[in-house]
Amino acid sequence: MKLFYSPGACSLAVHIALHESGKSFEAVRVNLKDGEQFSPEFLKVNPKSKVPALARDDGSILTECPAILFWVARTSPEAKLLPDDADGEARALEWMNFISGSIHNGGFTRILRAERFVGAPEHAPAASEKAKADTIKYLTIAEEMLAGRDTALPSGHSVVDDYLFVIARWVPRTGKELSDFPALKRLHDRVAAREATKRALAAEGLA
Amino acid sequence: MKLFYSPGACSLAVHIALHESGKSFEAVRVNLKDGEQFSPEFLKVNPKSKVPALARDDGSILTECPAILFWVARTSPEAKLLPDDADGEARALEWMNFISGSIHNGGFTRILRAERFVGAPEHAPAASEKAKADTIKYLTIAEEMLAGRDTALPSGHSVVDDYLFVIARWVPRTGKELSDFPALKRLHDRVAAREATKRALAAEGLA
Ligand SMILES: N[C@@H](CCC(=O)N[C@@H](CS)C(=O)NCC(=O)O)C(=O)O
Ligand SMILES: N[C@@H](CCC(=O)N[C@@H](CS)C(=O)NCC(=O)O)C(=O)O
Repeated sequence: MKLFYSPGACSLAVHIALHESGKSFEAVRVNLKDGEQFSPEFLKVNPKSKVPALARDDGSILTECPAILFWVARTSPEAKLLPDDADGEARALEWMNFISGSIHNGGFTRILRAERFVGAPEHAPAASEKAKADTIKYLTIAEEMLAGRDTALPSGHSVVDDYLFVIARWVPRTGKELSDFPALKRLHDRVAAREATKRALAAEGLA
Repeated sequence: MKLFYSPGACSLAVHIALHESGKSFEAVRVNLKDGEQFSPEFLKVNPKSKVPALARDDGSILTECPAILFWVARTSPEAKLLPDDADGEARALEWMNFISGSIHNGGFTRILRAERFVGAPEHAPAASEKAKADTIKYLTIAEEMLAGRDTALPSGHSVVDDYLFVIARWVPRTGKELSDFPALKRLHDRVAAREATKRALAAEGLA
């Protein structure tokens, strides 16, 4: 199995979850800064030109962070990375869809890559500032959803927390500090202390 | 159970899936044009100010289209609205995350509500045009993912198709015609012919 990742990107959530799961895999770095995601080789892996992508042992490739996290958890049930009742699963998916679609793509991506969202390059700086405000709004909603817990789900640690850990690392890009979101900070610190997280960070050169 | 919806919005996918499932529910219209999603009453239902939201019989509220579709399918297994193996589920989630995060929020929402994505109102028209181009790119990827099928999943009809049906109805907003995406058009026509779809469209005043 091969995980295509970029250091510190949302693929880090999958990288951590894979270590949690005990599955064996190889991590393949994609150089986003040099535009390697748009190379003909990588477009064969993921036509959407994004990490994470997971090439499984049968050769099939799975994309989209929430889908990969779900698959890793479901195929390693002994690691207990997701609840297994319909309501618990739905709550995990509710969290992950909000993280992926709103906090990440609807927030941080607009801060970092504002030029993609505007019709003229000179509109990008103002769009990036607007995106910071929206991202803070989404993070505030996430903080309320945590309701003081240091786990996304009341049932305990799950792959959702690995995903929120990555988001927590990005908070300073909004101009806020992680400590402005106390539950998210406690979640971050808890996940940071796990062995799987330390191994993934070290493998990505971020330790 | 209560479904909070707006006619023809992404909530239509849940509306159709609920009819497919055979569950009994009440449909409650939220007037997005008048900003009812920002009213104190609705913010108590969904602090994210979005439809769909599903108030379940135990009083708990579930949000995010993919999470609700998953829950409806999982709690009505006899309706066979999702595959039940880990790979099939992951593929369904991969589709739904791409629909929700990229095609919908990263595409159509930027066309329709461009003013939210820019720093100054006069930047909105150009941003909306850019969004049309990006949405067409995402629809082209979806068409390739369909690989000529009229179902998102090779295993047959699923809630993902109800979601794609709604997206197919929106295609003209990009300046393209649905017939420019032949597999998506066949999927649309197939889903349109189902009883559950007809009932949901009629209930939303769209028949
Ligand atoms: N919807 C995708 C988005 C993935 C995504 O945006 N990945 C970023 C890294 S955090 C990326 O590959 N960016 C490269 C680019 O946008 O060019 C998911 O949730 O997995
Ligand atoms: N991430 C949410 C997005 C839902 C969404 O954007 N709903 C639209 C209708 S299609 C809405 O309620 N818009 C009201 C607004 O944005 O003010 C999901 O997938 O359910």
